[in-house]
Amino acid sequence: MWRDLEPLGLSARTGGYFRQPFLTAEREAAAWFGQAARARGLRVESDGFGNTIAWWDPVGDDRRAGAVLTGSHLDSVLDGGAFDGPLGVVSSLAAIDVLRDRGVTPRVPLGVGVFVEEEGSRFGLACLGSRLATGQLSWSDARELRDRDGVALGDVIAGDDHTDRPGSGPRARADAAVPGDRGAGGATPGSLLDGVSCFVELHCEQGRGLALRDDAPVGLASAIWPHGRYRFDFHGHADHAGATRMADRRDPMLTYAATSLAADAAARARDGVGDTIRRATFGRLDVRPGGTNAIPSLVSAWLDARASTDEELADLLSEVERAARDRSAADGTTLDVTAESVSGEVIFDRGLTSRLAAALGATSDRDIAERGVAERDAVGREAADRRRSRALAAGALATGGNAGVPIIPTGAGHDAGILQQAGIPTAMLFVRNETGVSHSPEESITTADALAGVDALANVLAELITDPPAAPQLGEAAR
Amino acid sequence: MWRDLEPLGLSARTGGYFRQPFLTAEREAAAWFGQAARARGLRVESDGFGNTIAWWDPVGDDRRAGAVLTGSHLDSVLDGGAFDGPLGVVSSLAAIDVLRDRGVTPRVPLGVGVFVEEEGSRFGLACLGSRLATGQLSWSDARELRDRDGVALGDVIAGDDHTDRPGSGPRARADAAVPGDRGAGGATPGSLLDGVSCFVELHCEQGRGLALRDDAPVGLASAIWPHGRYRFDFHGHADHAGATRMADRRDPMLTYAATSLAADAAARARDGVGDTIRRATFGRLDVRPGGTNAIPSLVSAWLDARASTDEELADLLSEVERAARDRSAADGTTLDVTAESVSGEVIFDRGLTSRLAAALGATSDRDIAERGVAERDAVGREAADRRRSRALAAGALATGGNAGVPIIPTGAGHDAGILQQAGIPTAMLFVRNETGVSHSPEESITTADALAGVDALANVLAELITDPPAAPQLGEAAR
Repeated sequence: MWRDLEPLGLSARTGGYFRQPFLTAEREAAAWFGQAARARGLRVESDGFGNTIAWWDPVGDDRRAGAVLTGSHLDSVLDGGAFDGPLGVVSSLAAIDVLRDRGVTPRVPLGVGVFVEEEGSRFGLACLGSRLATGQLSWSDARELRDRDGVALGDVIAGDDHTDRPGSGPRARADAAVPGDRGAGGATPGSLLDGVSCFVELHCEQGRGLALRDDAPVGLASAIWPHGRYRFDFHGHADHAGATRMADRRDPMLTYAATSLAADAAARARDGVGDTIRRATFGRLDVRPGGTNAIPSLVSAWLDARASTDEELADLLSEVERAARDRSAADGTTLDVTAESVSGEVIFDRGLTSRLAAALGATSDRDIAERGVAERDAVGREAADRRRSRALAAGALATGGNAGVPIIPTGAGHDAGILQQAGIPTAMLFVRNETGVSHSPEESITTADALAGVDALANVLAELITDPPAAPQLGEAAR
Repeated sequence: MWRDLEPLGLSARTGGYFRQPFLTAEREAAAWFGQAARARGLRVESDGFGNTIAWWDPVGDDRRAGAVLTGSHLDSVLDGGAFDGPLGVVSSLAAIDVLRDRGVTPRVPLGVGVFVEEEGSRFGLACLGSRLATGQLSWSDARELRDRDGVALGDVIAGDDHTDRPGSGPRARADAAVPGDRGAGGATPGSLLDGVSCFVELHCEQGRGLALRDDAPVGLASAIWPHGRYRFDFHGHADHAGATRMADRRDPMLTYAATSLAADAAARARDGVGDTIRRATFGRLDVRPGGTNAIPSLVSAWLDARASTDEELADLLSEVERAARDRSAADGTTLDVTAESVSGEVIFDRGLTSRLAAALGATSDRDIAERGVAERDAVGREAADRRRSRALAAGALATGGNAGVPIIPTGAGHDAGILQQAGIPTAMLFVRNETGVSHSPEESITTADALAGVDALANVLAELITDPPAAPQLGEAAR
C-alpha cells in the first residue's frame, strides 16, 4: 500500500508532500483508497463533502447500529511528511487484513473512514470534513470558506450531494442549509456517522513523547490541548521604499516583526514550566503589495497558539495581542485580530481509552489515570532524557508492553477530537515518530513501529467488534 | 490620453495599479502607446526586449545622429499609483503636441522611449529594459531571470528579436549571446539607442522634496542615491506548530523578525542626520512551507536599502547582516545573503542639467551647484517645514520660477540612471507629488502640476532639438 501512496503529491524538490483537498494529489490518494477498499470487498460510502467510509460488514445488513469506526485522513500540509494521515488509513486496512487472517468475526460493521481537509491547508479550517460530518459546521457556513485563490468550497464541491440536513448529524445545527438531496455516491440518507458506537484513530505521533522512551512503539492519547488560529491584520501605509524617510513611515512589517518576537517570548516563558504548555507560531504570512521596493500597506499573519488549558490559551493570546497593540501605537499602524478557529480542550473517552489500554497491556483504570498524569509530567525533555539515560545505564531496555502503554496528551488537532466533541466515544493510538518532527519531510516511522501499530490497532479493534459498546445516545452525549 | 490609460491594470478592490511586464495590463498600455504615437505620425521602433521608441523626425532621415530622447516607462509595481512611469510617457507625447503648436522645427530626431520592466516587479531586476538596451545586462544573463512562478524571461520573449550583439550598445558586454537576428518589429540593426545624444526623463516625484515647498511644481534631479536589493534566506527546521516544544525549535521566522527590526533601527539611526540618508525596507517575503500549523523551514526576505553614499550603503548592509547573523546563531538557524542588484550613486550630467536649469529659470552653473547642495541639506522635514511656515507667515508665496528650479536628489531608481551610467548625458525632471507617496494608489499629481511638467519638458526639449548637443563618444564616456 505504501508503494501506491508514496508518489502522490511528493515534491522531488523538497522531498515533502502536498495533498490539498479536492486537488490532484489528494484526489489520487482518495481514488487509491476506494480501489484498495473495494479490492478487500469493503463497501465504500461517501457523503457529499468528500468524506468516505469503507465498511467491512460480514453480517451483511447495513443498519450499522453499534458500528466501530477507525481511519484517519489522506490530505497533507504543504511540504508535509509521508505519515501524517496516511499511516492511520493504511494501518486500518492492514488491520482488517490481520483480523481476517486471524479468523475474527465481527458482530458489528467495522468502518475505515477517510475525512477530508483535516489539515485545513486549503480552506483554513482544520478538520473540515469531520466538522461537517458531525454537523458541528453547517454547510451554509462551510460553503463560504475560500482558499487562497478566492475559490469557495461551495463552488469546489457544487454538484455533489450535501447531506447536511438538520438532524442528520449528531449535533446538526438548526440553521443548516440543504443544498439538494439526490442521494449521489451511494450514500444512505443521513450522516455517514449514524449508528457509529466509537471511533479509534491511529496516527503517527507529532512530538517526542514516544521517541524519548525506548519501550513504547505505540501509545494512547489522553487529551488534545486547546488550540486557536488567529489572523492578525496589521494595516500601515504603502509608500516608496527609497524615497520615504524613515521618520515618515507607518510600516506594518515592523509591528508584525515585534509581535512575532513577543509571541515567541510569551510562549517560551511558560512552556514546560510545571504542567503548563504554551506554543505560539507564526508560519503563514501574506504581505501586500509584496514588492521589494514598496513599504507594505498590509501584513496578514496567522498565529497558531496552543496551551495546556483553556485559560492558559486565553492568557497567551491576550499577552500577544497586548504586545501587538503597544507596538502598533508606536509604529502608527492599526491592528485587527480575528479568531479563525478556536477549539477547547478535548479529553478522549475515558472508558474507551481504558479498554484499549487494557487490551494493550495496562492493568486497571486507576493505573491508566495515574499514568496519564505521570506522562503529562514527563513531557519535559530533561525528565525523559534522564529516564532514558537511566534505562541505558542499566542495560534494561524494555521492548514490549510490560510497562503498559504510555498515555500522552498532544498539541496537535485531529478528526478524533471532533468526533469526541460530537459525543462519539473516541480514542487515539499514536505510533512512535523517530525524529519527533511532523509537518515536515523529516517525519519518520520505522517499519517495525508501523507494524507494531497495525498489531495494536488489530488487537483493540478485535475486542471492539466482538464485544461492541452500545451506540451512544448522541443527542444526549453531545450536550 | 489619461482617459485611455486610466483603466489599464487598475484594481477595483484596492484602487491601485498593477502592470507587470509582458502581461495583459502592461501589454495593453504598450499597445495604447503605439497607437497614440502613430496617431501623431511618429515612427515606432522596438527592440526584441520590449523597449519602444516613437520618433518625431521631420528631417526624414533615420540616421539619428545627435537624436534627443525623452520618455519613461508604463509598467507599475503591484498596487502602484497612476503616475509612476505613465506621467513621463504621456507628458512626452503632450510636449511634442506643444512643440508642434509652437511651430518648433527640430534639427535632430526627438524620440519618446518606453522602457520595459522599470520596476522589476516581475523579474526582480529594476530597469531591466534599459539595462538590456544599453548592454549593461547581457541577454545570456537576462534570459535566465525568472518570475515568481518560475517562468524565465527567455521563454516569455522567445521568438522575438534580441539585438544584444557585442557592440550594439554603448557598453555591450563581450559575453553577450545573440539569440537570432531576424530584424523583426521594424528595428534597425544595432541598439535602439544608437546615435542618442542625450536623455531627459520626466517623472512624478516620489518624496516630499517639492511638496514641502510652495513655489515649485517642477524640479530637476541632481543624483540617484546608491541602492541595493539583497535577498536574505533564513533557513530553519520545519516542524509541527503544536507538538514542538518552544525549546526544541529552530524557527527562521524569529531570525527574520529580529533582522527586520534591526534593519529599521540601523536606518533610522542615521537617516536625516546631517547629509546622511539611510533607508531600509523589507516589503517582500516568501515563507516555506507557509502553513498556519507548521514552523517554517525557510523565510526569504528582500531588503531594499538606499543611502546617500556608497560607503553608507555598505555600512548599512553590514550592520543589518551582523544583527541577522547574531540572532541566527541564537535561534539555531542559518543565513544566506545574496545581492540581487546593487547600483552605485548616479550623478546626472552636470552640463545637461545646467542647460535645463537655465531654460527653467536658474542663472548660472555656480547657482545650480550651490542649490543642489542646499537642497540636499534641506531634505529634513523640519527644515522644509520651517521654511514653509516662514513663507506662509510672510504672505509671500512665490508661484513661479523666480527662485530657480529646485535640484534634488532621489532615493528612487530610474531608467535615466541606467542611461547616465551608460555614458549618455542624462537629466531628470520631477513633477510635484502632492502626497509625497509613491508605489501606492495615493500617489497624486494635480492637473495644474502635470501641465506645468509638460510645459517645462517642452521648454527644455525645444532648446535641445534646436541646438542639439554632440552625440557622446559612448565607448569613451562609459569607461
